[in-house]
Amino acid sequence: MKLEEKTVCKNYIYRGRIVNLRCDDALLPDGTPCKREIVEHPGGAAVLCVREGKVALVRQFRYAYGETIAEIPAGKLEAGEPPEEAAARELAEETGLVAKELSLLFVLYPTPGYTNEKIYIYEAKETVCGVRHPDRDEFLRVEFVPLEEAYRMVDEGEIKDAKTIVALQRYRIGH
Amino acid sequence: MKLEEKTVCKNYIYRGRIVNLRCDDALLPDGTPCKREIVEHPGGAAVLCVREGKVALVRQFRYAYGETIAEIPAGKLEAGEPPEEAAARELAEETGLVAKELSLLFVLYPTPGYTNEKIYIYEAKETVCGVRHPDRDEFLRVEFVPLEEAYRMVDEGEIKDAKTIVALQRYRIGH
Repeated sequence: MKLEEKTVCKNYIYRGRIVNLRCDDALLPDGTPCKREIVEHPGGAAVLCVREGKVALVRQFRYAYGETIAEIPAGKLEAGEPPEEAAARELAEETGLVAKELSLLFVLYPTPGYTNEKIYIYEAKETVCGVRHPDRDEFLRVEFVPLEEAYRMVDEGEIKDAKTIVALQRYRIGH
Repeated sequence: MKLEEKTVCKNYIYRGRIVNLRCDDALLPDGTPCKREIVEHPGGAAVLCVREGKVALVRQFRYAYGETIAEIPAGKLEAGEPPEEAAARELAEETGLVAKELSLLFVLYPTPGYTNEKIYIYEAKETVCGVRHPDRDEFLRVEFVPLEEAYRMVDEGEIKDAKTIVALQRYRIGH
């Protein structure tokens, strides 16, 4: 059985600052017409940064949930920006840390039913202190949390963000 | 420093079958006006189902990425449907398996920058065979993959879906 669907027509409903929305006319694998609602996103970069047994977590209000949650440093890719540069930039902006090396851990598909976002998750190695300079409209609080405490936060549901759980669990499995 | 943002006005741009889109007028923590693009989603349920050392994975074409990818059985919540019922329903629809018990592993926030979707991830215990009956517009292929092979697929980037990675890593850590 073929599983591929075909695009008949891309229909843009909204072009925004963070996302675009399309409602495409498409064909199911058996040729039946269908609609596909797609959220276009430029992609994101995130960084797992562990220093002296502590992981950098950023607390930030997430408007969509109406909650302040803990995440690893991350942000969206700027136009044409390679993911690794975005990761280095976000780490520096949010924590002031500069990594000598970033190694790619995952290219994560956060919720493939409706978005094309890819989140590039890196691990920062050999970080040195620089200067924090968050974006003008980013209000956040950086914490360095002992790994065992971070693992507990994942296990007990206090950390809810997918990229953060994926990165922390990978680190836990590998060490 | 307060991190909360306030809603001034919710502005609906699109109301669809899977998602709604809003572009709200809001206030940053310091009172500065801002816009917030929010994708509303009813939430999803997913099931980690391991039988005789093999995990149930569903291969499905994901239109947003133009790729066929492997995921644990999952789907969106119907109106008013409790997540646990949705999990049982999706497991039965996609694999034909019925679980005697579903235990909640995670409430995952897949990409908190713009969506309010919550994915409830369950572990199925003591499954018995029933009858498969996929949705009319779901074209998918079910496989039972040995756990070690599934872990390798996560490590090597062949499994990209966030909920699937989170569930498999949790199982690997716990066993």
